[in-house]
Amino acid sequence: MTGAMTGTAIGFTGGVLDRGDAIRHDPAAFAALRRDPAARLLVLDGYEPAMAAGELGWTAIDPGIADGDLVLLGLRDGTGHFARLADGPARGRSFELIAALHGLRAGEAATYAAARSVLDWHARHRFCANCGQATAAFRAGWGRACAACSTEHFPRVDPVVIMIAEHDGRALLGRQPAFPPGRYSALAGFLEPGESIEEAVAREIGEEAGIAVTDVRYVASQPWPFPSSLMIACTARATDDEIVLDRNELEDAIWVPREVVRAVLAGEPGPFLPPPPYAIAYTLLTAWAG
Amino acid sequence: MTGAMTGTAIGFTGGVLDRGDAIRHDPAAFAALRRDPAARLLVLDGYEPAMAAGELGWTAIDPGIADGDLVLLGLRDGTGHFARLADGPARGRSFELIAALHGLRAGEAATYAAARSVLDWHARHRFCANCGQATAAFRAGWGRACAACSTEHFPRVDPVVIMIAEHDGRALLGRQPAFPPGRYSALAGFLEPGESIEEAVAREIGEEAGIAVTDVRYVASQPWPFPSSLMIACTARATDDEIVLDRNELEDAIWVPREVVRAVLAGEPGPFLPPPPYAIAYTLLTAWAG
Repeated sequence: MTGAMTGTAIGFTGGVLDRGDAIRHDPAAFAALRRDPAARLLVLDGYEPAMAAGELGWTAIDPGIADGDLVLLGLRDGTGHFARLADGPARGRSFELIAALHGLRAGEAATYAAARSVLDWHARHRFCANCGQATAAFRAGWGRACAACSTEHFPRVDPVVIMIAEHDGRALLGRQPAFPPGRYSALAGFLEPGESIEEAVAREIGEEAGIAVTDVRYVASQPWPFPSSLMIACTARATDDEIVLDRNELEDAIWVPREVVRAVLAGEPGPFLPPPPYAIAYTLLTAWAG
Repeated sequence: MTGAMTGTAIGFTGGVLDRGDAIRHDPAAFAALRRDPAARLLVLDGYEPAMAAGELGWTAIDPGIADGDLVLLGLRDGTGHFARLADGPARGRSFELIAALHGLRAGEAATYAAARSVLDWHARHRFCANCGQATAAFRAGWGRACAACSTEHFPRVDPVVIMIAEHDGRALLGRQPAFPPGRYSALAGFLEPGESIEEAVAREIGEEAGIAVTDVRYVASQPWPFPSSLMIACTARATDDEIVLDRNELEDAIWVPREVVRAVLAGEPGPFLPPPPYAIAYTLLTAWAG
């Protein structure tokens, strides 16, 4: 966590499981860990977690589940915590899920985020992109291998830049058509091959709002399991304030003064509704409004 | 570029092409752009660029090349710059290529990095990971679509954390078995689903060297086209200095005082040889040594 963010809880961070990298390379140790009667299996209905009192639900592992159908999420006090491969891909976020995740303790949401991203990746990558044949899980569920062409595949993490351009004490906020009514948030977009974080921030603000920026600064990061993004939050200095909207990306974009952002984050009425607290856009706005 | 890094050239950054996002969504505009007699095609022998006087080589586009075999790298002064899909995947870095890239102007190396990562991605992802059928390029070469199951696939960018742990004015540097003789560099590893940049930094230093860290700080980033990483450079504060090596990852790790790092970067003899200037590890060491 950066110095600027110390003391601020960032959604989906703070997981307490040790990922147990060495066990991924040791199938015998993996097999012993899962057969330990104390081993825990994450309770999921599809991709929906069971939750009580801010914690995820866990159960014993049915001995009939094949090793290759289990992902080692990590260890806690030497006990393996696992998830079982799903029957199909996740169907995106539901409002119910989002409301429920909001009630999880931070570290618990981090464990769920890792499980959801990896299980969904398996479900969407059952075939080898190199040769088209079926693949099978290996490395304790942290990869898939192709027996036909020997290619190894590993879970995707897609970096996304999310940022506030500042001009004259005001933040540039945008509204995507899919947002709930009234919500505005930081602009965001996928980082592409061949660019740095700083270059992606400048490109995205230029594409979406026609604003040129300089002086990009990193603020914080967060995993975002819908399906497997790494959100990289930054600020930047706008060199002008004339917005030219890309209407394929944004429905609207506005400049909001710092004191108005601060008031909205404090729950006062204002010209926009803020992003939810577990989204790093909220962390970013809070840091910027400072 | 962060404030801390202003004035320091970071390898593979500084590209000058406008990626032309709107054209990716407009096949007619793409077709017109590539048929413009001024359009340029990157000269490649496999994945090796033609270079002269620090610049990449370009040629006219053969009208016989199908639109679907061309990637729009971007526009400069309204002229499209393209690359042609390769016959197969890249075979990794050669010493000759690395020496040559070192001679390219910064923006030129950035253009090559984007081209190499995307072309190599196409070559290694000709089939649909969701259903196993053949896919075809779309979006001006910035994606592949599956006609059988309608899944769309986009080029991977794999975030990698690369970092220096500091203890008592000394930097933790490690040596991978594949390094040239004498070289030590920052530790590094792939960021995984369900963790932030800061958490990945702490996990990797713990796994590779047995060192616990706190106070992770972002320094700079760089695209790394072997094959498609985003290098995210950080510093961290070590809470102890007793190294426990993971010999599957590192051959050795050492603590090096700041003044020794500074001297080695200045070209003086020392206990290690530094990473090459176009690697962000060099940027990171330079920033840390102050």
